[in-house]
Amino acid sequence: MYTLYYSPGSASMAVHAALIEAGAPYSLEMLDFERGEQRSKAYLRINPQGTVPTLIIDGAAYVESAALMLALAERHPESELGPRAGSPLRPAWQQWMVYLSNNLGATFRYWFYPGDLGADEHPPHVRKALQDKIESVWSRLDGELAANGPYLLGEHFSAADLLLTMYMRWSRNMPRPATSWPALDRLALLVRQRESWKRMVEIEGLTDWTLMA
Amino acid sequence: MYTLYYSPGSASMAVHAALIEAGAPYSLEMLDFERGEQRSKAYLRINPQGTVPTLIIDGAAYVESAALMLALAERHPESELGPRAGSPLRPAWQQWMVYLSNNLGATFRYWFYPGDLGADEHPPHVRKALQDKIESVWSRLDGELAANGPYLLGEHFSAADLLLTMYMRWSRNMPRPATSWPALDRLALLVRQRESWKRMVEIEGLTDWTLMA
Ligand SMILES: N[C@@H](CCC(=O)N[C@@H](CS)C(=O)NCC(=O)O)C(=O)O
Ligand SMILES: N[C@@H](CCC(=O)N[C@@H](CS)C(=O)NCC(=O)O)C(=O)O
Repeated sequence: MYTLYYSPGSASMAVHAALIEAGAPYSLEMLDFERGEQRSKAYLRINPQGTVPTLIIDGAAYVESAALMLALAERHPESELGPRAGSPLRPAWQQWMVYLSNNLGATFRYWFYPGDLGADEHPPHVRKALQDKIESVWSRLDGELAANGPYLLGEHFSAADLLLTMYMRWSRNMPRPATSWPALDRLALLVRQRESWKRMVEIEGLTDWTLMA
Repeated sequence: MYTLYYSPGSASMAVHAALIEAGAPYSLEMLDFERGEQRSKAYLRINPQGTVPTLIIDGAAYVESAALMLALAERHPESELGPRAGSPLRPAWQQWMVYLSNNLGATFRYWFYPGDLGADEHPPHVRKALQDKIESVWSRLDGELAANGPYLLGEHFSAADLLLTMYMRWSRNMPRPATSWPALDRLALLVRQRESWKRMVEIEGLTDWTLMA
């Protein structure tokens, strides 16, 4: 039994889809960001950073979307979340999980939270630099996927594709959304057609970037 | 047999120490950053990002220091690099590996490479914001370690401590180095006393932030 603290469409969404992929029983606790619930005293006791996701595993609280998915994959080896230890695909899977967190997760955080860089709004050159960084990741991944896709692990879907699709969604209002890169677009389409993604979208009440949009 | 592409004192140093902890045979390829060797055509074929570390595992190239250490720990379960799958400490270990990469790795990258934010030099408010972010991580980790240390996994040393000590070293010339936080200072002292760390320091020829400094 897991409990996921989440906010619709945020960094928790990939973990939410992973829980559904795992087929494990879980309960959800929604935090209303507009009301600042992520900074309530009660929540800061669970996660002192005041961010989502937080996942309760065996009664203890853990953070970092990529790490939570590493843990879920391992605890549910019968799922498709990740190749088993010893598989030749395992180092690539570990690489992509960390790569996405480090290169996209941290950069999107600065993109969406100018306050983290001491500004109310990003000056144009900072905006441009963050956009360039994110686009350089799309280009690199698109090259990989065009050569060895359709998934990050080739023929094999994994949690890394959930994480990537989440970050891709976050780019939907950027000057060049990730779906402008054809091999990325194909991957996101495959992921959005999965039952887990569709249920997560429905439960979280996300209305944009659906299959039809 | 592993091959590590490295540059002294850079993000490769924790992976280097982990290779020694693993007791596995490895060879080293040094890249001279002053001569821009990380951007040579030959190296970009191995790692299109032009960064270190790159680790060759079974003939294929992988990146991301935290991911390489996840892989090494799993491939050398007899080492102390990480708790085995199924251990109650495993989710915390996965959390810290990703947390350090996402929160310290990515932020230090911006700290040391103003060009990544479109500037020759950080304006004071950006410098201050990045410094605040890094210091908030030190404070949070110091609180954790003071309560449940001396290592990130309590009594148990792991690869997460190598990664943390590397990032701590990078703060040595900042206004408030990580060693100003007592529980962090204690952890780094324990890590720097390890044979693996001492050999890595000697091989990489690092002369500052030794035990005596
Ligand atoms: N690296 C973390 C990022 C967590 C994070 O920054 N989450 C954002 C939502 S996407 C959040 O909780 N923001 C609320 C706030 O900072 O007040 C992860 O991947 O889990
Ligand atoms: N997130 C990567 C960071 C890699 C990275 O940025 N490495 C730096 C050295 S610490 C580098 O290679 N810089 C050379 C350059 O960018 O030209 C990791 O942890 O492996």
